[in-house]
Amino acid sequence: MLEQLKQQVLDANLALPKHHLVTFTWGNVSAIDRESGRVVIKPSGVEYDGMQAEDMVVVDLASGHVVEGNKKPSSDTATHLALYRAFPHIGGIVHTHSRHATIWSQAGLDLPAWGTTHADYFYGTVPCTRLMNQDEIEGDYEHETGEVIIETFTQRDIDPMQVPAVLVHSHGPFAWGCDAADAVHNAVVLEECAYMGIFSRQLMPEIDSMQRALLDKHYLRKHGAGAYYGQGK
Amino acid sequence: MLEQLKQQVLDANLALPKHHLVTFTWGNVSAIDRESGRVVIKPSGVEYDGMQAEDMVVVDLASGHVVEGNKKPSSDTATHLALYRAFPHIGGIVHTHSRHATIWSQAGLDLPAWGTTHADYFYGTVPCTRLMNQDEIEGDYEHETGEVIIETFTQRDIDPMQVPAVLVHSHGPFAWGCDAADAVHNAVVLEECAYMGIFSRQLMPEIDSMQRALLDKHYLRKHGAGAYYGQGK
Amino acid sequence: MLEQLKQQVLDANLALPKHHLVTFTWGNVSAIDRESGRVVIKPSGVEYDGMQAEDMVVVDLASGHVVEGNKKPSSDTATHLALYRAFPHIGGIVHTHSRHATIWSQAGLDLPAWGTTHADYFYGTVPCTRLMNQDEIEGDYEHETGEVIIETFTQRDIDPMQVPAVLVHSHGPFAWGCDAADAVHNAVVLEECAYMGIFSRQLMPEIDSMQRALLDKHYLRKHGAGAYYGQGK
Amino acid sequence: MLEQLKQQVLDANLALPKHHLVTFTWGNVSAIDRESGRVVIKPSGVEYDGMQAEDMVVVDLASGHVVEGNKKPSSDTATHLALYRAFPHIGGIVHTHSRHATIWSQAGLDLPAWGTTHADYFYGTVPCTRLMNQDEIEGDYEHETGEVIIETFTQRDIDPMQVPAVLVHSHGPFAWGCDAADAVHNAVVLEECAYMGIFSRQLMPEIDSMQRALLDKHYLRKHGAGAYYGQGK
Repeated sequence: MLEQLKQQVLDANLALPKHHLVTFTWGNVSAIDRESGRVVIKPSGVEYDGMQAEDMVVVDLASGHVVEGNKKPSSDTATHLALYRAFPHIGGIVHTHSRHATIWSQAGLDLPAWGTTHADYFYGTVPCTRLMNQDEIEGDYEHETGEVIIETFTQRDIDPMQVPAVLVHSHGPFAWGCDAADAVHNAVVLEECAYMGIFSRQLMPEIDSMQRALLDKHYLRKHGAGAYYGQGK
Repeated sequence: MLEQLKQQVLDANLALPKHHLVTFTWGNVSAIDRESGRVVIKPSGVEYDGMQAEDMVVVDLASGHVVEGNKKPSSDTATHLALYRAFPHIGGIVHTHSRHATIWSQAGLDLPAWGTTHADYFYGTVPCTRLMNQDEIEGDYEHETGEVIIETFTQRDIDPMQVPAVLVHSHGPFAWGCDAADAVHNAVVLEECAYMGIFSRQLMPEIDSMQRALLDKHYLRKHGAGAYYGQGK
Repeated sequence: MLEQLKQQVLDANLALPKHHLVTFTWGNVSAIDRESGRVVIKPSGVEYDGMQAEDMVVVDLASGHVVEGNKKPSSDTATHLALYRAFPHIGGIVHTHSRHATIWSQAGLDLPAWGTTHADYFYGTVPCTRLMNQDEIEGDYEHETGEVIIETFTQRDIDPMQVPAVLVHSHGPFAWGCDAADAVHNAVVLEECAYMGIFSRQLMPEIDSMQRALLDKHYLRKHGAGAYYGQGK
Repeated sequence: MLEQLKQQVLDANLALPKHHLVTFTWGNVSAIDRESGRVVIKPSGVEYDGMQAEDMVVVDLASGHVVEGNKKPSSDTATHLALYRAFPHIGGIVHTHSRHATIWSQAGLDLPAWGTTHADYFYGTVPCTRLMNQDEIEGDYEHETGEVIIETFTQRDIDPMQVPAVLVHSHGPFAWGCDAADAVHNAVVLEECAYMGIFSRQLMPEIDSMQRALLDKHYLRKHGAGAYYGQGK
């Protein structure tokens, strides 16, 4: 069952250390099979070395119960599930503590679009969530982390398909995409933009968001009906 | 046809990840055969792994039409063509989003000559282009990117053979040289100087350009009639 | 005698360059066998390449005398011994000059808890010791280094099991854990937090410690009776 | 003739890219045979890949003439010779454009002793030279570079054996030692301290030199009659 998806989730998890996005086990990737309502996710606190497809855990989207696998799922599973429920078009999610995206999270700042690298993937600012309140932290924390992400996109009217990443305040980034590999791809881009953002702001403290027309041009030449980048699909 | 040039362009493209100048497919190198007026360039959005010489696309300099190859050329092809037309002595061009050169681009700042590392390759400031206007962005964008680069060198009276690189505002660097490998070489040096520039300015915010005599000494001991660096050619 | 512990100490020492925590021989790991009161530690100034388990030196906890091994123990041995005596629950200690933790040491600053990466391992601020006085430096320096670490934890009422690391002023970090491997693990986390701390503070100079509730949540979901992270032990 | 020294100089040159101190051919190491007055140095502008011991060039200390080898010696040869003449106890010299030491050179600032990593190798501030004047630059430039280094040590009364490195203003570092390998070792330490210095100063702009007693302790426990670090020689 879902063997192909397990392999994709394994491959995507293994791509995290390859892209220098994780230290030790500090990251997790999941993917969803929308038809069956099943989410495949990394087990909790297991090392990347020697991890197998059969170590992946299958969780039911609706109930959150483990339906396959003999390991505990990632401690962040409830966050993934909340996002899959609220964002119906995403197919994969990744969470890391990648250094520079985490730095923006720790600073509690949005990452503005400051160049075409950003605009090629994120159609505007990558938002940072608000601080969670004590009830949210002491309650169903991982689920509430998902809720505060969803609230951020709703209240600020950001389309999660156009800005496929978020910075969780005092914590780190989540990124998503059409599948697990795409989510990892976006996490890599976020980390790259986060790095460049730190020092762009150092060189030019009064730096403003890039021109709207340039953001449109770059995002839309790669995404949507008028896209002309790449070899087509 | 142009098999040797295709191989050189392939090799130069593969040198980009080796020198840590690109993430994913974010870079492209081209070279020109001036005699036939043909430009060989990387295909658009294709991964470096497994890329072959026959994947390179041949474009006509005058018309911009693809004359050989079954893939779409890089989306930045029109920028390359504009530069080959305006700068008749260059033989290869590279575009990357290398981290530190891109940081200067995002900050919209020139990279001054602050040391002999810079002076050994760039005979003065590496300029940053002006912001493009809405018509340029919404029109023939990639061609206009080339035009704004050319305008920068013309208006500021910079010789593109003596300063073989530019920072495109809100975007990233282009570098060039006598051939594809030389262009990549200059892109590596630019990235190195961009890195050192960020932190030289941090240590010494009031840093001024290096002494003119030292710039002359280092540039001219490696370039031109009186050069004495290296083993000769 | 203690062959298994020697192997563990060797492995932990070899993990230091693998995690980019040391240059040349600038690091040392030890572990203790509490039953026999014997400490196994790296020899002084020996290169990692070709180091063997039998090169490890065995020292008596009470007297500090070498009881096995034909090499001199690490020059920092007296610091390790002082910590083993004062902190009865630790099983391994590591000292490095890892770049970013050392930067905080050189700046003479505590590293506050600014995110969940920190909170997952350190239950609050990682303290920086006071400057040592001339008598301490010119006297039994390495022993006094241990004493000033112990004083820091005592006077500031920090539990060394909950904050398993310290920044020694003008010097560099020590970290510890239940065994040698765990000590190295904590040293890696400290370095990661130290890196992110430098730039979190750059982005947000007025950054305050993270919320107490979030610190509690993350530390306690991984440590203590209510822990639910990982696969259990 | 001098085959062993050529091999040592080759090995030391090859250690530069291994320690990430050089890009392309931007570095050179030499060593001297004091008895014969012969200096062995890297050829100018030759790539590290495939470099052989027989590519090393032998130069006469007194006259500066090439006495063996069919390649041109490094363009910085005259600087090396000046230092060998003025500093009679040094056996090897290295010049690089290593990133962080070069940043201090470009900023025109001394690198103070801010921690024990520095104190273990450099007995105080690593000085930055003054700007060279136009006559020096336009005259026998490489020789004058050596002279300004010597002037720096003489006028500031620094012992080149106790502070085996210098930052040349607007240029980059030179380091030296008892032989070629030791010079490279010191160049690595300098780069490490230069990196940590940039960010120590960022965290603590008013940072002062470390305590004199601590500098003495660390330098003298590794150097001189009372040294007790390492396994002895």
